[in-house]
Amino acid sequence: MSLNKLLGPEIQELIKTKDFSSLKETISDWEAPEIAELLMRLPEEDQPILFRLLPKKIAAEVFSYLDPDAQEDLLLGLKGESIRNILEELDPDDRTALFEELPAEITSKLLNLLPPDERKEALSLLGYPEDSVGRLMTPDYVKVKSHWTSERAIEHVRNYGTQAETIDILYVVDREGKLIGEVKLSDLVLASPEERIENIMDTHIHALSAYQDQEEAAKVMQLYDRIALPVVDSEGKLIGIVTFDDIMDVVEEETTEDIQKIASVEPLQIDYSRAGPGILYRKRVIWLVALLIASFLSSAVIQHFSYILQSVIVLAIFIPVINGSGGNTGTQSSTLIIRALATGDITLKDWVRIVGKEILVGMLLGSTLGVFLFLRSYLGGYGIEVSLVIGLAIFFVVIWANIIGAILPIVISTMRLDPAVVSSPLLSTLVDWTGLFIYFSIARIILNI
Amino acid sequence: MSLNKLLGPEIQELIKTKDFSSLKETISDWEAPEIAELLMRLPEEDQPILFRLLPKKIAAEVFSYLDPDAQEDLLLGLKGESIRNILEELDPDDRTALFEELPAEITSKLLNLLPPDERKEALSLLGYPEDSVGRLMTPDYVKVKSHWTSERAIEHVRNYGTQAETIDILYVVDREGKLIGEVKLSDLVLASPEERIENIMDTHIHALSAYQDQEEAAKVMQLYDRIALPVVDSEGKLIGIVTFDDIMDVVEEETTEDIQKIASVEPLQIDYSRAGPGILYRKRVIWLVALLIASFLSSAVIQHFSYILQSVIVLAIFIPVINGSGGNTGTQSSTLIIRALATGDITLKDWVRIVGKEILVGMLLGSTLGVFLFLRSYLGGYGIEVSLVIGLAIFFVVIWANIIGAILPIVISTMRLDPAVVSSPLLSTLVDWTGLFIYFSIARIILNI
Repeated sequence: MSLNKLLGPEIQELIKTKDFSSLKETISDWEAPEIAELLMRLPEEDQPILFRLLPKKIAAEVFSYLDPDAQEDLLLGLKGESIRNILEELDPDDRTALFEELPAEITSKLLNLLPPDERKEALSLLGYPEDSVGRLMTPDYVKVKSHWTSERAIEHVRNYGTQAETIDILYVVDREGKLIGEVKLSDLVLASPEERIENIMDTHIHALSAYQDQEEAAKVMQLYDRIALPVVDSEGKLIGIVTFDDIMDVVEEETTEDIQKIASVEPLQIDYSRAGPGILYRKRVIWLVALLIASFLSSAVIQHFSYILQSVIVLAIFIPVINGSGGNTGTQSSTLIIRALATGDITLKDWVRIVGKEILVGMLLGSTLGVFLFLRSYLGGYGIEVSLVIGLAIFFVVIWANIIGAILPIVISTMRLDPAVVSSPLLSTLVDWTGLFIYFSIARIILNI
Repeated sequence: MSLNKLLGPEIQELIKTKDFSSLKETISDWEAPEIAELLMRLPEEDQPILFRLLPKKIAAEVFSYLDPDAQEDLLLGLKGESIRNILEELDPDDRTALFEELPAEITSKLLNLLPPDERKEALSLLGYPEDSVGRLMTPDYVKVKSHWTSERAIEHVRNYGTQAETIDILYVVDREGKLIGEVKLSDLVLASPEERIENIMDTHIHALSAYQDQEEAAKVMQLYDRIALPVVDSEGKLIGIVTFDDIMDVVEEETTEDIQKIASVEPLQIDYSRAGPGILYRKRVIWLVALLIASFLSSAVIQHFSYILQSVIVLAIFIPVINGSGGNTGTQSSTLIIRALATGDITLKDWVRIVGKEILVGMLLGSTLGVFLFLRSYLGGYGIEVSLVIGLAIFFVVIWANIIGAILPIVISTMRLDPAVVSSPLLSTLVDWTGLFIYFSIARIILNI
């Protein structure tokens, strides 16, 4: 795909020789996302040079496809006039996304470059909380009246549709501006010219609030297969729309954050490829140190039982086996639950059924691993007593870890926190010390020490 | 949202009393996805009853929103005539998805219920490999000719567009049926009636092959913000289109599979909520047993060095600390890389830069944890020598785990396998025994045993 183009020897050569005018010619039939990719791969000092060579209209589109920090770097390398051009051409939602990422003083400087009415628009979008629907929405939609005919509506679209973000869906409002339905452009085209909008409009509108979380918007869009959703205020008046391309980006971002949390990494917020060692270190070290401290609990348990170890040193050999299986089991159940909660497959109300199911699964898994480990250890010549200890220990540890893994994300969710913070490493660490406690307690009883 | 509706006391009551005709009335203004949700929450024996009460046209739409196994259950409870009605009303891509999930003999029975031309269509879609674009595409699109005027094209859409899956985008083909461009319905509407298609069409087409992987289609769609993509054969002839709603489902499914793999669970293929304990057990036990066996390597390492443990039993206390930190570090780096590869943020060509970055990050993390653990252990009264062993061990183990975590997904990718198989548990287990080896080797040297 585009990568082959980007990395072709011809392009490489033009970049190396800094032959930007030939480069401009070569990419003249490229699309905005491809040019953006290329731009981000250029050395930082060359980015503004190529960017200034782009036609004004295309420049803004390319800009909107850049990563936030690439946008910031580029702005710093451009003059006031070029910046104003970009800002004016950007779609309102892309502009808000940009302002959101920049330091406050730069944002206010940029806002001043905008014409008064666009500045007002940007400021109002910025008034909504981060990650809210308000930040994603665009006021560039087309509205029609329910008593209009299909012909009149199409005429209206012809006159006012060129500036809109999408005209595939039109929004039907009443006299007060309240949203009462939506109508697809395709249905307008298919309808007879005299047909009234009220007869073809869809009154099943799934309106969002500007204050709603973007993730909820993504779920509604996915459930109802819509390419755009309307945003209304508390009185039901239409104030903007949110389109599927912005939502798809939100979904990808949120999923990446979830996955990073599951791995005990503070969400990077930027692409991995653009994160320097310093950022990676900071986002990871907090959790590693916290988990290290938590693992001292395991040390304390071993220390407490070290009199058992001293007489039966062979028990030390199985510490990684017990801890490993506990951690793995807990990781499995917690991750399954976290993802099912994230996709809306299960809700908190289902918790009794989930926990019941996981107790059963835990017992099945525990028995399998218990019997397996008992046999392996017995046949390996460790004697019946030690083998019993190990087999029983893993049976109980697996059941315990499985239940903890299932319950913890649910509990965290109930506290209105993101269940993805129940990371695999956190769970393994928690299960480690309780697992060791179970292990040595069983040893104490069976070996009668 | 819909869940409130679904779980409202009124509905609950109607279900409990099996008052299906009132239920039908209550849900008469619901949308298909909502009815599907409700249906799946009914007891299995009640599902066909409610389903038969639905109007024919709506029934097929509701059916397409059901989970694959709910679809199968429902088909078993319906009579031939109702099944034929559903099948005929279903969109070709939804029908293919259904056939794909069913056992082969049921599929062939169902195929026989279709009228001959639709059977031919279904069979051709089924000829493409699983997870290929061919299985998702629909032949219900509208094509136009480049020399037509905008007016004529709109007229054509009016006549042939009602059956199409989408008419928001129309496809421009030449005399041989080769795809040469696409034109948005909205651009047609905005253009003057005499404007020729060739002047308004977009020749930047991102055509897919029917044999391409669905994940690639998702990436193209996301990169270029398209709501539909054309599918062409080897000669460039248009054979179908793929729409964004199907792709969004693919993205969610693939991400869920990735997350499950990262947690060492064989992808469930079905929703967690619908997976019984038997399935969950089977999808998890394979990995748990494999990892258990792998963890015997750690046991072997401890056994090999047990003469050291016997003289310095305190070293046993830190086994979970060393193993935990190694596993956590490796989980962080491997998960970051796996996700960055999945979103296309990094490619295999970047491997030198990635590994270099992770070596540096590993050294930063290793130093921090090393110094911290040394101080903690020394101040805790474990003596300078043991503290040195522990501090140095964690320094090297963290660096080692970080590199392995970064390199393994890249190596697996190079072998054209899914990097997500480098699960956190697998990585922890691999790092455990090498970590113990590093730990005891350092102990042997410093403690001079």
